[in-house]
Parts: sequence; C-alpha cells; structure tokens
Amino acid sequence: MEECIFCKMVNKEILIVPIYEDEQTLAFLDINPASSKGGHTLVISKTHYGNLIDMSEEDLEAVSRTIKKVSRALLKIYPGLNIMQNNGKEAGQYVMHVHFHLIPRYEGDGITIEKWVPQKYAEGQMEEVLEKIKSFL
Amino acid sequence: MEECIFCKMVNKEILIVPIYEDEQTLAFLDINPASSKGGHTLVISKTHYGNLIDMSEEDLEAVSRTIKKVSRALLKIYPGLNIMQNNGKEAGQYVMHVHFHLIPRYEGDGITIEKWVPQKYAEGQMEEVLEKIKSFL
Repeated sequence: MEECIFCKMVNKEILIVPIYEDEQTLAFLDINPASSKGGHTLVISKTHYGNLIDMSEEDLEAVSRTIKKVSRALLKIYPGLNIMQNNGKEAGQYVMHVHFHLIPRYEGDGITIEKWVPQKYAEGQMEEVLEKIKSFL
Repeated sequence: MEECIFCKMVNKEILIVPIYEDEQTLAFLDINPASSKGGHTLVISKTHYGNLIDMSEEDLEAVSRTIKKVSRALLKIYPGLNIMQNNGKEAGQYVMHVHFHLIPRYEGDGITIEKWVPQKYAEGQMEEVLEKIKSFL
C-alpha cells in the first residue's frame, strides 16, 4: 500500500523508534498521546489490512500477543489501560491500516473515551437485533 | 469466582441468550447498549481472568477469533465498530472479569468514545517514556 503511512513505517520509509517489533507486528508510541503522561502506543500488523475482520487468523493472533506483551509493560507504569480498535470512519478510524490504541490511564487524566450513555432496548428490539446478528455469523 | 457476574453467566446461574458460544468464549448482547440501534456486544473468556495481561495465550487467541467472528456479523448490519477493552478502574473497568466491548457505530449515533484531545510530549519526555516501557518488556 504505497500511500499508507503505517506501511511506510513498516518499510522504514518513515523512521520511527519501535517499542517492540517482530516478524508480524510493530508497536510504537503515538506522537500525540491522549494524556500528558504519554505512553499511548499503537500496535499494528505489518501486513496491510483495512480493518480487523480482514486480518488473517495468524496475524490477529500475533497482534494479540504483542498487545498483551506491551500492555504488561504499560501496566507496570500506569494503573489503568484502555485497548481500542476502530473500524470504519463512523467509528473514528482515520488511518485505514488496522491498528490498536493502547491508552494508559490514571486518575485525573481527563480522558473520557470509556464513557457512553447507556441506552435501553425497546420491547422486542433486543430479540430482533440478536436474531439479525446471529443470521450473519 | 463465586461473586463474578460473568462467571455466573458462563455457569448458567444467570440465564442469557448467547450470540455465540464455544468451549473457551462467550458473546452476548449488553442489555444497556451504547446506542439506540443496539448491537453492543460483550465477548468474554469463560475462564476468569481479571484483565487482559493475566490471560493465557490460548484463551487470548480464542477470544480474538470470537471477536473477529462477531465483528464480521456486526459490520454487515452497522457501518462502523469500536472494539474496546478496559483494564483497571482508572480505565473504566467495572466488572473484574476480562471482557471486550464491540460497539456498533453509525453516523449521528451521538457516541464519543473514540475522541480524545491530542497532547504533545515535552522535550525529552517521549524518549524517557519509551525507555521506561522498553525496560519492562
């Protein structure tokens, strides 16, 4: 993917200092972290996939292992951690190369990404949604 | 874990209608979805782990496969999807049994979970954070 910024990082056309790298995955600091204490990390698959559901099982498992490895290190420094992966522009995906945000959290960090207003299902709606999802499995 | 609500679901002490279930994982609808169109799904490991870094490699891989499977179905219904996993109360983890939120997204859904205010590293801070993380890998 010639124009993909993450592919350019993988191919060393854009130089980054990796936190961790193996054959299938790469982890590096987001230069604009979500909090002032930093540590916001991106974990990517070296192979270009647009989103999570396009990933091969092997690459998905490799990325999971790297996420766990880096998360363990981050949780030795920061007390909390959000792992977030966005699919599609409606979900806030801006770089169309699958990536996972590892966002360190601590009290008073001013981040609200884990907050939403809980909704209620209308009568019968939950069953309808459930059946629809199951029909696509 | 006697008092864990997710363990009770796994053990059928609390009855739920699963979206998907296999030997190691369970996916079910969150009864209070983040948006009015619903579809907000939780994917859990049947084995009790407090958070992601405690998980066995095998269970983590099994959960990854279930997330991909259910995500594929959700993205046939909704255009966008956030996958989010919170570790620690500072990150908004309320049930201390590792779980992944699959949150369907669409234009005008009013959800802001993917939004944060990008910060900048002070001079030298990025290198310092990087070295600290790498020292714990």
